[in-house]
Amino acid sequence: MNHQDRWLLPAGITDALPEEAAHLEHLRRTLLDLYTTWGYELIIPPMIEYLDSLLVGAGHDLDLQTFKLIDQLNGRLMGIRADMTPQAARIDAHRLKREIPSRLCYLGTVLHTRPTGFTGTRSLLQVGVELYGHAGIESDAEILSLLLTTLKTTGVQAFHVDVGHVGIYRALVEQAHLNSEQESQLFAAIQRKSRTEIHDLLTIWQVSPLLQQQLTALIELNGDVSILAEARQALAPAPAEVLEALNSLEQLNKHLSNFTLHFDLAELRGYNYYTGLVFAAYVPEHGQAIALGGRYDNIGKAFGNARPATGFSTDLRILAELTTIPPIRKTAIFAPAGLDAALQTHIQQLRQVGENVIQALPNQQGDALAMGCNRELCWQAGQWQVRNID
Amino acid sequence: MNHQDRWLLPAGITDALPEEAAHLEHLRRTLLDLYTTWGYELIIPPMIEYLDSLLVGAGHDLDLQTFKLIDQLNGRLMGIRADMTPQAARIDAHRLKREIPSRLCYLGTVLHTRPTGFTGTRSLLQVGVELYGHAGIESDAEILSLLLTTLKTTGVQAFHVDVGHVGIYRALVEQAHLNSEQESQLFAAIQRKSRTEIHDLLTIWQVSPLLQQQLTALIELNGDVSILAEARQALAPAPAEVLEALNSLEQLNKHLSNFTLHFDLAELRGYNYYTGLVFAAYVPEHGQAIALGGRYDNIGKAFGNARPATGFSTDLRILAELTTIPPIRKTAIFAPAGLDAALQTHIQQLRQVGENVIQALPNQQGDALAMGCNRELCWQAGQWQVRNID
Repeated sequence: MNHQDRWLLPAGITDALPEEAAHLEHLRRTLLDLYTTWGYELIIPPMIEYLDSLLVGAGHDLDLQTFKLIDQLNGRLMGIRADMTPQAARIDAHRLKREIPSRLCYLGTVLHTRPTGFTGTRSLLQVGVELYGHAGIESDAEILSLLLTTLKTTGVQAFHVDVGHVGIYRALVEQAHLNSEQESQLFAAIQRKSRTEIHDLLTIWQVSPLLQQQLTALIELNGDVSILAEARQALAPAPAEVLEALNSLEQLNKHLSNFTLHFDLAELRGYNYYTGLVFAAYVPEHGQAIALGGRYDNIGKAFGNARPATGFSTDLRILAELTTIPPIRKTAIFAPAGLDAALQTHIQQLRQVGENVIQALPNQQGDALAMGCNRELCWQAGQWQVRNID
Repeated sequence: MNHQDRWLLPAGITDALPEEAAHLEHLRRTLLDLYTTWGYELIIPPMIEYLDSLLVGAGHDLDLQTFKLIDQLNGRLMGIRADMTPQAARIDAHRLKREIPSRLCYLGTVLHTRPTGFTGTRSLLQVGVELYGHAGIESDAEILSLLLTTLKTTGVQAFHVDVGHVGIYRALVEQAHLNSEQESQLFAAIQRKSRTEIHDLLTIWQVSPLLQQQLTALIELNGDVSILAEARQALAPAPAEVLEALNSLEQLNKHLSNFTLHFDLAELRGYNYYTGLVFAAYVPEHGQAIALGGRYDNIGKAFGNARPATGFSTDLRILAELTTIPPIRKTAIFAPAGLDAALQTHIQQLRQVGENVIQALPNQQGDALAMGCNRELCWQAGQWQVRNID
């Protein structure tokens, strides 16, 4: 391998150089501080765990996206986390073991075996919040409000949010008594919003005309809050679960009266994982969601403690791409080389009040300007003084 | 696997729960802010890279400590970083390509295949600084000063620092013309400070009496700065490289006149990796070093750009163990449930000025005190007011 090759990074794996790293660190602190003011406590789950824990509640997709490792101490299979949500659920269920609601947040690297998302990355800086222990719409509303606040606070422009409820599709499809292969086919057709395909499948399977009409209606039921009233008509007579889900969506809309939500009853992202309300945030530039969330009440069950749960997560690198970069570093002061005690004390004092001071190294390459400084420390009129560089 | 097993973490792998995570986040910000005031720029190298890059300049030990992965995209071997120093060197040499000195810092998870250190961990939060592009003692002195400031700022008590210089041992052992197996045996004997063993080996190998005396003297040459003068006598007539190294150590001592350094000429930690001055920090409670650093001028060579380099790194988790935990969270305010616009505005305003406000969820478990709040938001005298909980 020659020098040129040696520093090539694997596809979808990147360094953050100083400018980008400063931006990411700024966003990181902004978000963790925001979540603290909402009562969310930071947890730091490990980068690797036994595979069984990592994949709890997750589908086949997450398994494929998880790098596998052998634990040399006992030969057991471990994985590098591809999603921190199961880790947060494990911590709520088995480490914290609280009866009261838990509000947790996390931020860290997750790796994927294959490139995903519009950036084609395999290394995300996942940041998310989870609220455990409350099943009502109020906790979904809090989580969604916090997502909106996250996007506003970081400066993401012109985003919109799609809201759905997997309970609607789930209740209808249960009545159709399909086998699992048929369910997969129908699910794919609904995701493609292909009216013809849905019609053909349901006809072949001899699904009742009412159910056919209801399932087909789902793909048209998207728009502002008015589609919830339309849905009551289009899905009538609807199973009780469908009516409950529509009630939830209406309540959610009341909770978030300052923001125009977009409803989509065929929004079934993470269908196998979520159990209720689901939502995704988009920006016009990108076809793919920039944040995902919803309710997933059963994930803690595998850990022996099935608490209601709702949350969202996003990727700090995507937020960085969508927001402007703050000044890289505060303007620095260049100090001369030397051991002089008064000089050293002065440098120390400047640093203690938050100034960035770079002390020259004897015979170094580059002057103050080249070192990114706009001021310098000089001996003038019998004392050390900071002066601007002309 | 039953519920009890499922949440067990691999040996040496841990969660940081809210209290510990808050402490780690506090230390993280303290250190990154400190490094900024010294002109060190944050970089974020990736968690995984091709193995060749990760192991550049590193010995066999690092290879054994590195988890290996196959890149599914091309079948090439990748590793999870076990040390971020080679990554920083790659970034300096091939991404930044500066002629001027680079000051870089980093903080992130590194994983080891087997437990290390006094905590038996396999997951460290490595934090470190590196200064590239200057070969003089002034940059070593800056790095060592920054290590002392790191330990003082985080509140580590009663630490001491051992300083050595691998050039002294290296120059002497070169004169002995040993083969590589003999070198390893001698190195091990010196590390064990076993006078008898050293004497026996050197006698069998027919090393000259002068060199025998000089090499044996190394294990006694430790103590305060006065041992540097002793070394000039004990190692006379010394090779030029030895005299240069002793000069460097004396200069270093002048630079750090406010701190009592402990010198140890048999301190050869990382001998294959370091090229000059080396140092390690210790605290009385622990036999193993809590921070390590030194000069390693050749590491960039493999990337085609051999710049002088000096730096140190430590583990944020170890610093957390050695320091006291700050208050977990600021005392929080419990707000009632509800959509009332004035209530929502008031909550928002409190959060914007940095207060932590937890809004009650209808019919939730736990009252304000159980939720960690010492104040609550109440409707009183016609307005929303914060009051203490009795």
